[in-house]
Amino acid sequence: MRAIKDDFLQAMSNAASSVCVVTTDGVGGKAGVTVSAMCSVSVDTPTPSLLVCVHHESPACEAIRTNRVFCANLLTAGQAAISDSFAGRTGAKGIDKFDCASWTDVVTGAPVLDGALSHFDCRLVHDMFVGSHRIFIGEVEAVGSLGCGKPLIYHHRGYGIPERLSA
Amino acid sequence: MRAIKDDFLQAMSNAASSVCVVTTDGVGGKAGVTVSAMCSVSVDTPTPSLLVCVHHESPACEAIRTNRVFCANLLTAGQAAISDSFAGRTGAKGIDKFDCASWTDVVTGAPVLDGALSHFDCRLVHDMFVGSHRIFIGEVEAVGSLGCGKPLIYHHRGYGIPERLSA
Repeated sequence: MRAIKDDFLQAMSNAASSVCVVTTDGVGGKAGVTVSAMCSVSVDTPTPSLLVCVHHESPACEAIRTNRVFCANLLTAGQAAISDSFAGRTGAKGIDKFDCASWTDVVTGAPVLDGALSHFDCRLVHDMFVGSHRIFIGEVEAVGSLGCGKPLIYHHRGYGIPERLSA
Repeated sequence: MRAIKDDFLQAMSNAASSVCVVTTDGVGGKAGVTVSAMCSVSVDTPTPSLLVCVHHESPACEAIRTNRVFCANLLTAGQAAISDSFAGRTGAKGIDKFDCASWTDVVTGAPVLDGALSHFDCRLVHDMFVGSHRIFIGEVEAVGSLGCGKPLIYHHRGYGIPERLSA
């Protein structure tokens, strides 16, 4: 009998989502991880908020909990190599993942990726542990975006880009 | 001075996300709403889980809280009219939004859209209020997906489809 986990993964692979590298820095150390689970939560309050889901075994998870800050860096279609690096798919041991790109400290101290399509520099306000992942909810302290460029998206276990649907 | 809310909306519009119609039914009534904030939370536990964010003023929000069940129906590229209907963009007063498609009751009683690319029939396990939205976390009781078809995605305030990124 096929497990519900397999059916869930198959059904979820039909979804398309943007790819972010979530970073943090502070007394808990500098860390980053690629995630495809990022979404807007609240816009209408004085400070907008968003959430990211991070696997509890990722070193970034404990670092975010300690540092209480994170930055969600939305990748462009040209940054798949950065996604691979922070997803651990390049396999280069002993290499600092952050060496694959340039970074800036904006407000919270979490590394902001130069050339990210958008960045959301956040202070952690809620943290919930559900199964294998932690849901981190952040209030946005600084935000920026490029005026053009397409997001890198993850769909059917591969990379893609969005194309406008003709009416 | 440009408000952070405007910058946040601009930066978030660079992201691409799948479009779902989230439905519920039970003693709290039948309701449904279009959302672009849905993501996988946990796979590795006995029961997979996901989350959806629903505006607190949506009638679906209170209905989900009362019914304690919801179904996330992932739309195909051909179902933009269903998205428009459940987003309130068609403006037809006095019309039951559910009349625009066919539905099935699978496990929880939340309406499952016939022809959805994937459906995730969930029992509500956590509910968090953040600013303007409630985050609903559901454990998946039943799941299904079509073997082919592209998801409807929302990007730059319009509909799109994912295209494979050439290497």
